[in-house]
Amino acid sequence: MRIVIPIFEGITALDAVGPYDVLRVLPESDVVFAAHAPGPYADGDGALSLVATAALQDVTGADVLLVPGGLGTRRLVTDEPLLEWIRRVHATTRWTTSVCTGSLLLGAAGLLDGLEATTHWSTVDALESYGATYTARRVVEQPGGIITAAGVSSGIDMALRLAELIAGRVAAEACQLAVEYDPQPPFDSGSYAKASQEAKDFLAHRG
Amino acid sequence: MRIVIPIFEGITALDAVGPYDVLRVLPESDVVFAAHAPGPYADGDGALSLVATAALQDVTGADVLLVPGGLGTRRLVTDEPLLEWIRRVHATTRWTTSVCTGSLLLGAAGLLDGLEATTHWSTVDALESYGATYTARRVVEQPGGIITAAGVSSGIDMALRLAELIAGRVAAEACQLAVEYDPQPPFDSGSYAKASQEAKDFLAHRG
Repeated sequence: MRIVIPIFEGITALDAVGPYDVLRVLPESDVVFAAHAPGPYADGDGALSLVATAALQDVTGADVLLVPGGLGTRRLVTDEPLLEWIRRVHATTRWTTSVCTGSLLLGAAGLLDGLEATTHWSTVDALESYGATYTARRVVEQPGGIITAAGVSSGIDMALRLAELIAGRVAAEACQLAVEYDPQPPFDSGSYAKASQEAKDFLAHRG
Repeated sequence: MRIVIPIFEGITALDAVGPYDVLRVLPESDVVFAAHAPGPYADGDGALSLVATAALQDVTGADVLLVPGGLGTRRLVTDEPLLEWIRRVHATTRWTTSVCTGSLLLGAAGLLDGLEATTHWSTVDALESYGATYTARRVVEQPGGIITAAGVSSGIDMALRLAELIAGRVAAEACQLAVEYDPQPPFDSGSYAKASQEAKDFLAHRG
């Protein structure tokens, strides 16, 4: 079960690492972090780099493609070699998935046209510009094995569903236990619908 | 607000990246990933490396010390230079924190003796060997600014509480909104008390 996660400058690390640490619990999983060239890629803030061990051109297929998001996607939606790679790998996958604004890359590659999909709450218009219909659910499954997850942390929930699709319910529950994912957020501010105006204003003004 | 996260060979990446992507939302946060020497450090499976930009010896203080866990901690509980560094930095912090088996490093450094603390559910005995009393809560706050979180994903919940302590409730809610942390796990298998015997057996036999 080959799982390929493309990474890039300006990634949000948690988009990739949340699903990775869930899916690697599956004995049959083989996860590869790929990028235009092997090496370190800094996240949106620049404080953390993740290392790609494979070049995109050397990855010709995958069972699962998992595209993370981040500020870097603003630039990558016009990166034709990357989009072509996404289309080529997608043709080989059982599941083609995204977390957060990774959905914009699937959209720019033409994979979401006419489908329901989700993304980070702040990028709904961009998603719909690719012909997708935004759905304010945390994980959206569509025919053809396309699964999109909402912002950042929702990749963990998506990965548990993916684990179930790959290896069955017990294996997926084992993944959840391994990462002790029994969430108990101290507030209830994790969606745009639930967050207060004050929290939204804080984000808007942090620059 | 300087937040220092030590990393090492055998880290569980999500232990560090979950809190990082929450806390970096705070405008006043300045996060540094440090290790014995700058450079890449592979996680427990070896498929993903995180990059340290600072050497431990160059980090002499922090407002927040956040120690992640992972298989690598088995070796590090006897790494006296690391433990001495933890003690030295702890003397300068407002909050000294851990995620998952990062608590074993705080314990080995002598910081948990006589305190309540938590860790990954699989390492309770190791934690108690350092004089701590295991508490099956997701986040455990103790006098002196010591906060421990349970396994892996619990670092996200801890980081939201830390964000509140650092910058107040609205700022912490903004962090939660930024990472769209509105968890909806498809199963309820995220704690040892809730998981089925089948899920436990699956983990025990995956090798």
